[in-house]
Amino acid sequence: MLVDVKERGGAEAAGPATGRPTTLGRPRAEDRTPAILEAAKALLEEVGYDRLRIQDVADRAGAGLATLYRRWPTKQALVADALRFHQEALLPPLLDDPRADLTALLCAMTSKLCGAGGEVLPGLVAALRSEPELAAVIRDEVMAPLRARMRADVASIVGPDNPQLDLLADLGPAVLMYRAVLVGEDVDVDAVVGSVLGLIDALTPADGARPR
Amino acid sequence: MLVDVKERGGAEAAGPATGRPTTLGRPRAEDRTPAILEAAKALLEEVGYDRLRIQDVADRAGAGLATLYRRWPTKQALVADALRFHQEALLPPLLDDPRADLTALLCAMTSKLCGAGGEVLPGLVAALRSEPELAAVIRDEVMAPLRARMRADVASIVGPDNPQLDLLADLGPAVLMYRAVLVGEDVDVDAVVGSVLGLIDALTPADGARPR
Repeated sequence: MLVDVKERGGAEAAGPATGRPTTLGRPRAEDRTPAILEAAKALLEEVGYDRLRIQDVADRAGAGLATLYRRWPTKQALVADALRFHQEALLPPLLDDPRADLTALLCAMTSKLCGAGGEVLPGLVAALRSEPELAAVIRDEVMAPLRARMRADVASIVGPDNPQLDLLADLGPAVLMYRAVLVGEDVDVDAVVGSVLGLIDALTPADGARPR
Repeated sequence: MLVDVKERGGAEAAGPATGRPTTLGRPRAEDRTPAILEAAKALLEEVGYDRLRIQDVADRAGAGLATLYRRWPTKQALVADALRFHQEALLPPLLDDPRADLTALLCAMTSKLCGAGGEVLPGLVAALRSEPELAAVIRDEVMAPLRARMRADVASIVGPDNPQLDLLADLGPAVLMYRAVLVGEDVDVDAVVGSVLGLIDALTPADGARPR
């Protein structure tokens, strides 16, 4: 499905080598889509949503400003598509072990908050209020799958009937977000992960009687 | 210390009835400060930081725009002073019982997130990134005392040496903020408070052996 986003030549990208349907004649603007969405994602990580400029995306993708505006009339629309396209970058591959999966999710979230590419989440949080369409994409495509997966991980550790399940499932991302965005401190992800898993273990029956 | 902020007449507000030092002649612009900070707080609750206009604050306080700009050259400076002035509105009076105090803090926070005046916290979160001076005021004057008080409340329930103390102290505000701002759901504060206290109780030694 994906073409090589590094590919610069529009004519070649539209050719049979990519395995995609081709049209005769001049390559269409849509062929630049992966390069443009890749550039939008990279800039989102470097500067954040609020400071992202469409002109900079066009420059980095080697595309014309008119091409971008024809397809995405607003910055929200472009970023929403980039988020959908790169959703897997925000959600690492599912792991079998629920503790390892929780850890991977929290580490991925922390790197989007504080690490290289640490402008993504703070910039998006700042945009949630002023950009309702973008907020809907973030909530439906990023937050909802993240929460569902964490809930499944925690349920398989503490049992699906644990009265604290909802709270424990939101605990890790909530504390990371709170400390990084609101308190404004450097988040120690290992400490947070250790503490969250420690709390979950403290609430888990030691006799193995919990439902699987 | 506080004068009646409803008072409209500048001359009377500067008179001996207020118990404040007076100057002869024309009342000074500073005498309008409480009315202006009251108006700024009310508008902050109604529209949020990002949509607050200095002209609207001046209109509501019955003050001139020039008066406001002379004292507060920027919107950040005005809102920072309003937050300092009304800090007690964000932090309800300290209660003796730590469970009751935790509940009161979480309810006050929820009303600033979701209730009447529910534009305060989402608007401030959105401004944290773009307004570093305002962010410092929010962090020092609102977040730091809130976190310290919650930590003391939780410590007096679970004991000061509990390894989960830091996590439990941040749990309530983090989950409220996460669900209201990021997930974008209607927060059920009673359910969150009940769940947070239930989790704290589940980690508290039942034999009363914990340190006081």
